[in-house]
Amino acid sequence: MTGAASASFTADDYRARMERAVRQAADAGLAGLLVAPGPDLVWLTGYTPTAATERLTLLVLAAGRDPVLVVPTLEAPDAERALGASALTLRDWTDGRDPYAATAALLDANGRFGISDNAWAMHLLGLQAALPGTSYASLTEALPMLRAVKDAAELELLAAAGAAADAAFEEIRQVAFAGRRETDVAADLAALLRRFGHSQVDFTIVASGPNGANPHHEIGDRVIERGDMVVLDFGGLKDGYGSDTSRTVHVGEPTDEERRVHGLVREAQEAGFLAVRPGVACQEVDRAARAVIADAGYGEYFIHRTGHGIGVTTHEPPYMIEGEERPLVPGMCFSVEPGVYLPGRFGVRIEDIVTVTEDGGRRLNNTEREMVIVD
Amino acid sequence: MTGAASASFTADDYRARMERAVRQAADAGLAGLLVAPGPDLVWLTGYTPTAATERLTLLVLAAGRDPVLVVPTLEAPDAERALGASALTLRDWTDGRDPYAATAALLDANGRFGISDNAWAMHLLGLQAALPGTSYASLTEALPMLRAVKDAAELELLAAAGAAADAAFEEIRQVAFAGRRETDVAADLAALLRRFGHSQVDFTIVASGPNGANPHHEIGDRVIERGDMVVLDFGGLKDGYGSDTSRTVHVGEPTDEERRVHGLVREAQEAGFLAVRPGVACQEVDRAARAVIADAGYGEYFIHRTGHGIGVTTHEPPYMIEGEERPLVPGMCFSVEPGVYLPGRFGVRIEDIVTVTEDGGRRLNNTEREMVIVD
Repeated sequence: MTGAASASFTADDYRARMERAVRQAADAGLAGLLVAPGPDLVWLTGYTPTAATERLTLLVLAAGRDPVLVVPTLEAPDAERALGASALTLRDWTDGRDPYAATAALLDANGRFGISDNAWAMHLLGLQAALPGTSYASLTEALPMLRAVKDAAELELLAAAGAAADAAFEEIRQVAFAGRRETDVAADLAALLRRFGHSQVDFTIVASGPNGANPHHEIGDRVIERGDMVVLDFGGLKDGYGSDTSRTVHVGEPTDEERRVHGLVREAQEAGFLAVRPGVACQEVDRAARAVIADAGYGEYFIHRTGHGIGVTTHEPPYMIEGEERPLVPGMCFSVEPGVYLPGRFGVRIEDIVTVTEDGGRRLNNTEREMVIVD
Repeated sequence: MTGAASASFTADDYRARMERAVRQAADAGLAGLLVAPGPDLVWLTGYTPTAATERLTLLVLAAGRDPVLVVPTLEAPDAERALGASALTLRDWTDGRDPYAATAALLDANGRFGISDNAWAMHLLGLQAALPGTSYASLTEALPMLRAVKDAAELELLAAAGAAADAAFEEIRQVAFAGRRETDVAADLAALLRRFGHSQVDFTIVASGPNGANPHHEIGDRVIERGDMVVLDFGGLKDGYGSDTSRTVHVGEPTDEERRVHGLVREAQEAGFLAVRPGVACQEVDRAARAVIADAGYGEYFIHRTGHGIGVTTHEPPYMIEGEERPLVPGMCFSVEPGVYLPGRFGVRIEDIVTVTEDGGRRLNNTEREMVIVD
């Protein structure tokens, strides 16, 4: 599972990202950044350890010193093969030694550091104990937009992942839904995502009938029936970059109410998309989508934010949510995915990935947004 | 991906585990335990969220109050279906609200808490900010043996997982090695683990020739050749419990040195196994295995600890490592896996899962430990 990073990037790309991160950290008043295995580390170095374990792996970025990757001795040979390895220094530690002392020696003892959101609490506690004078902020809080603005090569990879997810939808709308279990359709979706180039399937939500009213229902044994609305929400990673799209299909003829609610969500999704342009606050995208649903009297049934960023993960800043006042910047990529969930009855969600262009937005998903009727 | 926990356990089992955890926490001087998604949460409640995300999910266990599971509103319906749900109270929070304030209201403002090793740093920072008077210890440091002693039902599941891994080895030794890539053999191994009942494959290490000298080499494109030693180390989860076994095979006739090193590692593994009995310190298992290798002059080439625990994960306390003075207790389960790694040349590792019985140890892996010759 090593080397999940795309081969599209060079050591120079990673060096530039690390330098940019150090500058942004300094601007935010931080002495440096501590980056744990996960998306931040992949994005900064191209390195993914075999597994995140209790053994400390941590990238230390600080102004005025070369990047250092603290790694367990056992994993050093893997780390040396990372695409960005030549842009950093490895410092390995052996089982039985104290990795926090080794890391502390690299840090300003009274500094404030940004640390990966998903760094393990045990590692943060180890650092806090080794250097009681330090303080910490979560990386997303300190530098929320570190990975948010994608460069041209990243946008190309995200567009390709979106096109692959769209190709999966074009196939899945042809399969039989009625009489099959949600799990069966989900397995079809996963196989299609892989067939169209995904190396990792993160989710294949198939939520039929009343299950659709639980926006986080994944899949179950429920047999899909004629007359069901079915929310499909699926995505994963292709060449290291994410896809995430939702469509809500209907098995056979929909009722007037089902048509009305679907049309409403489609309109809300369109309104969210049309709100996208540089300089607009993220929350305006949420407000635009939400207003359509609220004005129609369904506001209480739209129970989540309108969108989330996407990149080397399928779920990251920027968030399209009330209170997020930061402005959209060209190159940002995120979902626009309003939904209406009628408890015990059905749900509708429509989702595209959208990237901010110089003068508006561009959708990276382009399948039919009108209600698709399936068999 | 929800509901990975085995259906072998009831809400009463989970209630008993949570009560035991609270008692152990009090004995350790803690005001309570904060348990994040992951193995601790599965073991205590049977609940696995769809994904660990920036949205806080946290089980709060404190003396004198019922267990509370803080969950995002979106995920509450899934949490309600967890096997242990009836043994706890759900407290949900909605996007845009402060989950740390909601959690803080459940905590002693000046208490010391154990927190899951793998809880996200951002969540720990959120709690530290909401309640500056609290302090924290990693759960493994505070209660290292919380999940270490397995009950009879757990032992049965671990034995079944071990038998399935053994069945996979019996098949893989029949396949062709020479002329195929490590990745091909690894794919065979993964398919075999699934065929024998694994729902999750955690690792299928196939390290041939010089790759075997890197104990954390996973798999690569190297074509296996006649004359190679090949380290096979594989495992995953079956019915929610782990397997992990290693054997080192040889493609065609081995040299005298290869035979000698393999025999040495086998002897070391046997010595480690024979050291297992109640009351013995964990480090004695490491010492027993290491002494055999050191006495033969290969001490510097055994560069990792001798073993790690296994349960709902394939990698957990207790650790068989110098300095771990806690005693073995009947019901503990862990690997005994010495190795010798000759840089640039080859490596050998032999690994069984062993459980502590009333008067010694019992192996949960039972395939051939003499060197197996493959084609």
